[in-house]
Amino acid sequence: MAKKFVYAFKEGNAKMRNLLGGKGANLAEMTRLGLPVPQGFTVTTEACNQYYKDDRQINDSIKAEIMKALEKLEKVSGKSFGNPENPLLVSVRSGARASMPGMMDTILNLGLNDETVVGLAKLTENERFAYDSYRRFIQMFSDVVMEIPKHKFEEAIDALKTKKGVKLDIELDANDMKKLVETFKSIYKKNKKEDFPQDNRVQLIEAVKAVFRSWDNPRANVYRRMNDIPSIWGTAVNVQMMVFGNMGVTSGTGVAFSRNPSTGENVLYGEYLLNAQGEDVVAGIRTPEDISKLAEDNKEAFDKLNAIAKKLEKHYRDMQDMEFTIERGKLYMLQTRNGKRTAQAAIKVACDLVKEGLLSEQQALLSIDPKQLDALLHPQFDKDALKKAKVVATGLAASPGAATGKVVFTAERAKELAAKKEKVVLVRLETSPEDIEGMAASQGILTARGGMTSHAAVVARGMGTCCVSGSSEVKFTNGVCTIAGKTVKEGDAISLDGSTGNIYLENIKTVDADTESGDFGTIMAWTNKYKALSVRTNADNPRDAATAVKFGAEGVGLCRTEHMFFEADRILAVREMIVAKTVEDRKKALKKLEPMQKSDFVGIYKAMGELPVTIRFLDPPLHEFLPHTEAEIKVLAKELKITPAELSATVDSLHEFNPMLGHRGCRLAVTYPEIAEMQTRAVIGAAIEIAKKDGKLVKPEIMIPLVGDVKELKYVKNVVCETADKMIKDSGLDIHYKVGTMIEIPRAALLSDEIAKEAEFFSFGTNDLTQMTYGFSRDDAGKFLADYYDKKIFEQDPFAKVDQNGVGKLIKMACENGRSVRPDIKLGICGEHGGDPSSIEFCHNTGLTYVSCSPFRVPIARLAAAQANIKNPRKNK
Amino acid sequence: MAKKFVYAFKEGNAKMRNLLGGKGANLAEMTRLGLPVPQGFTVTTEACNQYYKDDRQINDSIKAEIMKALEKLEKVSGKSFGNPENPLLVSVRSGARASMPGMMDTILNLGLNDETVVGLAKLTENERFAYDSYRRFIQMFSDVVMEIPKHKFEEAIDALKTKKGVKLDIELDANDMKKLVETFKSIYKKNKKEDFPQDNRVQLIEAVKAVFRSWDNPRANVYRRMNDIPSIWGTAVNVQMMVFGNMGVTSGTGVAFSRNPSTGENVLYGEYLLNAQGEDVVAGIRTPEDISKLAEDNKEAFDKLNAIAKKLEKHYRDMQDMEFTIERGKLYMLQTRNGKRTAQAAIKVACDLVKEGLLSEQQALLSIDPKQLDALLHPQFDKDALKKAKVVATGLAASPGAATGKVVFTAERAKELAAKKEKVVLVRLETSPEDIEGMAASQGILTARGGMTSHAAVVARGMGTCCVSGSSEVKFTNGVCTIAGKTVKEGDAISLDGSTGNIYLENIKTVDADTESGDFGTIMAWTNKYKALSVRTNADNPRDAATAVKFGAEGVGLCRTEHMFFEADRILAVREMIVAKTVEDRKKALKKLEPMQKSDFVGIYKAMGELPVTIRFLDPPLHEFLPHTEAEIKVLAKELKITPAELSATVDSLHEFNPMLGHRGCRLAVTYPEIAEMQTRAVIGAAIEIAKKDGKLVKPEIMIPLVGDVKELKYVKNVVCETADKMIKDSGLDIHYKVGTMIEIPRAALLSDEIAKEAEFFSFGTNDLTQMTYGFSRDDAGKFLADYYDKKIFEQDPFAKVDQNGVGKLIKMACENGRSVRPDIKLGICGEHGGDPSSIEFCHNTGLTYVSCSPFRVPIARLAAAQANIKNPRKNK
Repeated sequence: MAKKFVYAFKEGNAKMRNLLGGKGANLAEMTRLGLPVPQGFTVTTEACNQYYKDDRQINDSIKAEIMKALEKLEKVSGKSFGNPENPLLVSVRSGARASMPGMMDTILNLGLNDETVVGLAKLTENERFAYDSYRRFIQMFSDVVMEIPKHKFEEAIDALKTKKGVKLDIELDANDMKKLVETFKSIYKKNKKEDFPQDNRVQLIEAVKAVFRSWDNPRANVYRRMNDIPSIWGTAVNVQMMVFGNMGVTSGTGVAFSRNPSTGENVLYGEYLLNAQGEDVVAGIRTPEDISKLAEDNKEAFDKLNAIAKKLEKHYRDMQDMEFTIERGKLYMLQTRNGKRTAQAAIKVACDLVKEGLLSEQQALLSIDPKQLDALLHPQFDKDALKKAKVVATGLAASPGAATGKVVFTAERAKELAAKKEKVVLVRLETSPEDIEGMAASQGILTARGGMTSHAAVVARGMGTCCVSGSSEVKFTNGVCTIAGKTVKEGDAISLDGSTGNIYLENIKTVDADTESGDFGTIMAWTNKYKALSVRTNADNPRDAATAVKFGAEGVGLCRTEHMFFEADRILAVREMIVAKTVEDRKKALKKLEPMQKSDFVGIYKAMGELPVTIRFLDPPLHEFLPHTEAEIKVLAKELKITPAELSATVDSLHEFNPMLGHRGCRLAVTYPEIAEMQTRAVIGAAIEIAKKDGKLVKPEIMIPLVGDVKELKYVKNVVCETADKMIKDSGLDIHYKVGTMIEIPRAALLSDEIAKEAEFFSFGTNDLTQMTYGFSRDDAGKFLADYYDKKIFEQDPFAKVDQNGVGKLIKMACENGRSVRPDIKLGICGEHGGDPSSIEFCHNTGLTYVSCSPFRVPIARLAAAQANIKNPRKNK
Repeated sequence: MAKKFVYAFKEGNAKMRNLLGGKGANLAEMTRLGLPVPQGFTVTTEACNQYYKDDRQINDSIKAEIMKALEKLEKVSGKSFGNPENPLLVSVRSGARASMPGMMDTILNLGLNDETVVGLAKLTENERFAYDSYRRFIQMFSDVVMEIPKHKFEEAIDALKTKKGVKLDIELDANDMKKLVETFKSIYKKNKKEDFPQDNRVQLIEAVKAVFRSWDNPRANVYRRMNDIPSIWGTAVNVQMMVFGNMGVTSGTGVAFSRNPSTGENVLYGEYLLNAQGEDVVAGIRTPEDISKLAEDNKEAFDKLNAIAKKLEKHYRDMQDMEFTIERGKLYMLQTRNGKRTAQAAIKVACDLVKEGLLSEQQALLSIDPKQLDALLHPQFDKDALKKAKVVATGLAASPGAATGKVVFTAERAKELAAKKEKVVLVRLETSPEDIEGMAASQGILTARGGMTSHAAVVARGMGTCCVSGSSEVKFTNGVCTIAGKTVKEGDAISLDGSTGNIYLENIKTVDADTESGDFGTIMAWTNKYKALSVRTNADNPRDAATAVKFGAEGVGLCRTEHMFFEADRILAVREMIVAKTVEDRKKALKKLEPMQKSDFVGIYKAMGELPVTIRFLDPPLHEFLPHTEAEIKVLAKELKITPAELSATVDSLHEFNPMLGHRGCRLAVTYPEIAEMQTRAVIGAAIEIAKKDGKLVKPEIMIPLVGDVKELKYVKNVVCETADKMIKDSGLDIHYKVGTMIEIPRAALLSDEIAKEAEFFSFGTNDLTQMTYGFSRDDAGKFLADYYDKKIFEQDPFAKVDQNGVGKLIKMACENGRSVRPDIKLGICGEHGGDPSSIEFCHNTGLTYVSCSPFRVPIARLAAAQANIKNPRKNK
C-alpha cells in the first residue's frame, strides 16, 4: 500500500507524534477524547522529507491527498473552500515532533479571497471583521509564504493611520480595512510581479510548502543544533478550520497552563484577550487579562476550560500548556502540549504528580530536563529587577548563574577588592591559568575572546561561577575597555547573566540558589534509588570537593594537580623546577612543592570523607607555567638568580609547534620521573597523615594521563609503586591505592587490552580523545565549525556531546577490551562530557562505572544517570 | 623435560639461529659439514632472557649446564681447564640472532691463570707467547668483564716501553711480559679491591654474564633500534677452544670473503696477518697482507680455505664472510656468515648466483636489503678522495647522497649562483616552504635545526637531494655562521654526506650514480615479475614525476598542490587569496592562480603518460603562506595595497594554537569552496588540454585531505563534481576522473565504512594518522622521544616504520570496512612510510593496492614489494 501522507484529526492519536508532529498528534488525541476541537487534518513529517527528496516540491500524489482531506473537512464542517456562500477558512501551522521555535508558525484565515471575503462579511454581519481578517491574511501570506518584508505592510497601515489622524488599529473602520486590502494586494503585486493568488487551493499548497521550507531556515537549524533535533525528523503541517476569537466581545482567545509554570503551583494559569485573534495575545499591543478573570466574563467557558485542563493533565500525566479560542461564547481547544516550566516548577510538578498518583517516581524523574536543574544551583537575577535592566551587549552563555559587582580588569585587583568584601566581576580579553585565584574571587567573569570551552568558560563552570565569554562587543584598545562602544573603567557597575550571555552595565539584584527545598531533595533521593552509574566530581581543591559532596558526588573522578601549581605561593617553585638544569636542582625545587601538594591532598581527602579520590598527575606542557613577556621574564630571572637571556632560552626551548600534541602528560613523567615521585609522595604522604590524625584510611587512585602505550604506563607506574610501597611499608599502615590511566589518545583505546594489564582503572578523557579522534583542537576549531553547522556537516558540537559514532566507537572498544583483560576494571569518564545528559546516557549504555563532572553538574548528572537507567535498566543494579 | 640452555657445537645446526645466535648456529653447521672448527659450545639466547628474568643473574641450573658442557669439551680436546699440565683455553664471544655491532665481542685466552700460564709456556716452549697471552687476557677480562678503563693498561705498557726505550710491543721480551702481568694484576686489584680471579670457572661465568649484560648497553640499544631488532631476542654466548695464530711464523689469522664485498666479483677476497691473534688484524697496528699472498706463504692452507669458501657458499647459497686461524700450519675456521656487501656487490652477487644456478630469482631478490639500493641512486664521494677528507662535524643523515660546492646562506643566492652554473650547498638554520626553489637549485642542504622529518629533510628526500639536518655544530650567531667553531662564509668550500651525516669543509670529488647497469636493470625487472603492490610516487612537479617514471613508478600517488603555491611567481596571488575579505576578491585571486595550477598539471600529466595521477587538494593551514616578520609584512602590504596593520590583523587572525589540528585540509574547502572549485578547474582543464593537444585521455584522481566525516567529503565532492562534470560536458570529451580521500584522521578510519560510500579510493596519510593516533606531533616529539628510546618504551620511530599495533589497526579496519562497502575501492598509502620496506611489507599483507613514495625510493619500494609478495604471495597476483 502506498504511504499515507495526510491524516484527518480523527484518524490520529497522541502516539503518532513522530508522523503527525506534536501539535497534530495532540489535536488528534483531543479529538479522540471528545474535546471541542475545530476539525482539520495533518500533512505528515514524511511528506516533509518527501518534499526535500523531491527537490523542494510537493509531488502530485501528496497534493491529491491534501485535496481529498480538504474535501472531507468541507463535509464535516458543512462549509466549503472558496465558496462565498459559506466559506471554509483554515489556519496552517507547523508542528514538528518536538516544539520548535524558529520555524514558520501560523497562517490564519486562509481561504479568503476577493469573493469569500464578501461572503464572510455577510455571514458574520461584520464587514470590518471580514476585511480585517482578509488584510491580516494577505499580510501573513505575503510575509511568511512569499517572503515579502513585513515592514512594507506595516508602513502602509501607519500611513493610513497618519492620514486619518488615528493611533490604534482598532480606530480603523471597515472602509479603511477595504482600502488596506487593496494597498496590500498592490504591495504583493509590486514585489511578486503577479496578482495575489485568488485560488484558495493554490494558497493552501503554497502555505504548506512554506512550512516545509521553514524547517530548513537558519534559525530553525540553530535551534535544532542546540536542542539535539535531527534534521531528518521533518515537520508536519496542520490545516485546521478557523474559529474566530475576534467576533466581538463574546469571543476571545488565550493560553492556559494546567499549573503555574513558574512555581509549579496546582492552579489554572494563563491569560486571554477578548475580541482578539491568536497573534494579538502575544503581540503585546493590548495587555491580556489574567485567566481568572474569564470566570467573570464567561463562567461556563472558564469551568469547561478548567475541566478540560484537568482531564488533559490526567490523560497526559503532565502539566499542559493549552491554546483556546472562544467564538461567540463557545470554547474551542486549538492546541495542548506538555507545558514548559521553570526548573523550580518542574521539580514541584514532578513531586506533586507522584503524590497525586499520576506518575511513578521513575516517570517523574523522566519528566525533568536534567539541564534545567542548573538554574536551581546558581544565583539568579531577581525577576522584577531584571525586567527594568537593559541588555547592552551579549556574549556566550559560558557558565550559568547571575553576577553583579564592580568591574576589575586584573586577577590581582579582583583578589584585592574581594579581600575587602567587595563584589567584583573580572573583565578580561581572555583568561589564563595565572588568573585562577582572581577568577575564584570574582562573582562573574566576562571575556572578549574564547568560546564555550575556552579557559575562562571551563574554569568558571568548574567553579560554578557565572561566565560570559567571547563577547565581540567587549574591546580592549590601547588599554581602554569598551563594551558596546561605552568606555568602562574599574569600579563601574556591571552584571552578567551566564545563562543567557546577557551583559548589563548596571547592578541588578540577585537571589541566591535554593538547593535545600524539599522537592529538590526528594528528586535527588530518587536519582540515587534509580541510577546505576556513580557520579563523581572533577575537583582540584577542597572547596570544590566540598561543594560536590553537598550535591551528592560519590567521589572525585578527576583532581587536576596542575591547577594547584599556579597559586601565587608556589608558582616560583614550579618555575624553578622547570628551568632546572640538573636532576638535583629539579629535585630541590620539587622538594619545596611537595608539602604544598600534600596539604592540597589532605584538604581534599578531608572534604571527601571515605569517598574515592582520583588524582591525575601533572598534565600540561611545562611552558604553560612560564612567563612569556620580556618584563615577566626579567622579574622571574631575578628571582631565580639567572640571567634573563638564560631564562629566555629555556622558555624558547620549551616552545612547541602543537602544544596539544607535545611534551605533556605522562611524557613529562617519563622524562622527569622525579616529578611523578614527588607527586606520589604527596598523594601517599597525605593519606598517611589522614590515617594517623583521623584514623581514616583513604584510597587514592593515581591516574597517569596521556598514555598511548602500555610501556609508558608501566614505566611511570613503576616509579609510583616503588615510591608508594616504600612509604606505606615504612608507615606500617594498611593503606591501599590504585594506579590507572586516562584513555584520551586514540592509540590507548585501540590497544586498551594491553593497557588494561597495567591499569586498574580507565578514565576516558573525552576532551582530548575528541580532539585527537577528529584531528582538530577545540581552541582552533571555532574558526571553521560555524561553517560546518551552516553547511549541515555537523549538527552537534562534539565537545559538548560525545560523538557516539566515532569517539564512542573507541570508548566502546576500550570498555570491551579493558573488561576482557580485567573483568573488575573501573571505567569512568572525566572529560567535559561527563556533565552532559545525552553523553551520560551513552556512558550508562556503554557500561561505565562512573561519570565525573564539575561540582555544579553533579545533580544534573545524577538525574541523567537515573533517567538512563530507567530507560535501559542495567542488570547488575 | 627441562629447557636445554647449552648446546655443544655438534648438537646444533644452521636452522637453530634463533636459539644459538648466528655465530653459534654457523659454527655448529660447519662442524656438521666436517670443516676444521675448534670445538666448543653455545649458551643459548634463552639463557640470556632467563638471565634478565632472574634479575641479571645466571641461575644455578644454567651454571651447571655450562660446567657439564665444559667437561665434555675437555674430553673432546684432551685438554683440561685449569690444568697446568695441558690447559684448555677458550674464547668467549657474543652471538645474537642478527649480527650486532655494539655488543661485547670477544675474550680470548680464558683459562689462563698464574699456574696454567706456566704450563702453556712449557707446552709451547714459548714463554713470551704464554705471558703475552696471559697479559692480553687480563686486560680484556678487566676491560670487558669488569669495566676497568682500558687506558689504565695501555698506559702501563707505554710506561714500560718508555723505560726500556723501545717503540713496539714486539720489542718487549718474555720478562717484560711477566712484569706486565704483575702490573696488570695490581691495576685489577686496585680497581676491584680484590685479586684477579684465578679460578678459571669463575672467569668463565663472569665472561658469560658480561656478554649477556652487553646486550643491554646503550650502543647495542641504539643499534637495535636502528635495525629493528627486538630486545626480546637476546644474545647467545659461544665458548670455543682457543687455537693460536700467534705461535710463530707458521701461524696466522685472517678474514676472507668468498667474493669481493665491494664489487661482487667472484674471487676470494680478504686479508691476514702471520703470527697474530684475532684483534691484531683489525687493530691496524700492523698492515695485514692481501689474502692472495697466503698462496705463497702456505699453499695448502690457501687452497683449503678457497675450497671451504666455495663449499660454504654453495651450502648457504650466499656470499660468505669467514674468520680463520692457522695454528702451526693447520687451518681452523672460527666463523662464517653471510657477508655484508655494498649495494653494487649485492646486486651483482644476486644476479651471479642466479646465473650459477645457486639461487632462484625470488631468492635473489630476498638476498638484497632494499634500503641499500638508495646508495645506487645518488651521487657518492669518490672513495679515494674521501679517504683524505676530514670530517669536521656531523648531523643527521637526512637524505642520502653526496654533495660538494660553495656555501650559500639564502635560497635566493642559491638560485642566483646555480643560474651561473655554480655548484652550491645551502646552509640554513632551518628551511621553510619559501626556500623550495633554492633547495632545488642546490647540490645539498645543511640545517642547524630539525630532525629526520623536518621540512628540509622531507623536501630533500622528495627531491633526491643530499641533506644533513639538525647538526648542533652548525651555529648562527649575530648573522655569522660557524661549523664546529670555524667561521664559514658564503663561497667557502663544503661537502656533505647525506648517507652518514658527515660534514666536510673542503671540496671532495663525487661520482655519479649508475642506475643503468645491467644487474640493476635485471633486479628491477624481477621486482615487477614478483610484486603484487603497485608502486607510485609522491611528485609535486614534472621533474619529480619524470624521475619517478625513470625509476619505474606506476603512477603519482600524491601530488601536493600547495608546494606549487610557494613559487615566486604565484605566492603573491596566493596571499591575495588569503587576505581577501569577500568571496569575490578571493575568486579574483584564485582566477590568477588557476592557469598556473593548470600548467603544473599539464606538465605532470605529460611526464606520467597514461599512468594515473592522484592530486591532493590544498592541505596546509593558510597562515603558512603568509609572511610573519614586520619587514615582510610591510613589503607584502604594499604589494597588496592594504596597510601593514590590516595585513598584520589578518595574519594574527589566522594564528592557530595547534596548526596541526587547525583550519586545514578539507576544512579549507568547506569554508572556501571556491578554492576547491579553482583546483578542480585546473585539474580537469589540464586533462582537457592534454586530450585536445595529444589525444591522450588522462584519468585524474582528486584526493580530498583530512576528512573526518563522510558529510565533509560529500560537501567537497559535490563542489568538485559539479565543476568537473560541467567542464567535461562542455568539452564533449570522454574524460573520467575519480574522487577519493586521505585516511589520516582516526575518525575517518573508524567510520571508513560510511566514508567509502562517497570515496572511490582511500589513501592512508600515515604521517598525520600516526601523529593523531599517538597524540604527538613529529615537530615536537623530538624533545621526548630520546627518553622513550633510552627507557625502552619505544624501540622504533613510529614516523619511520608504521606502528602496526596501533596505527596499523586503524589501517586494517579501514581496509576491511572500505572493501565491505565498495569491493573495488583502491587502497594506497602516501605517507613517508610508503618508502619504508617493513611498512611496505605491512601494506602488502594488509592488501593495499599501492604504495606511494618519493621518486628516489621507488626502486626500494619495488624491491620491498616483491620481497613481501615472495614471502606471502597474494592470491590475485
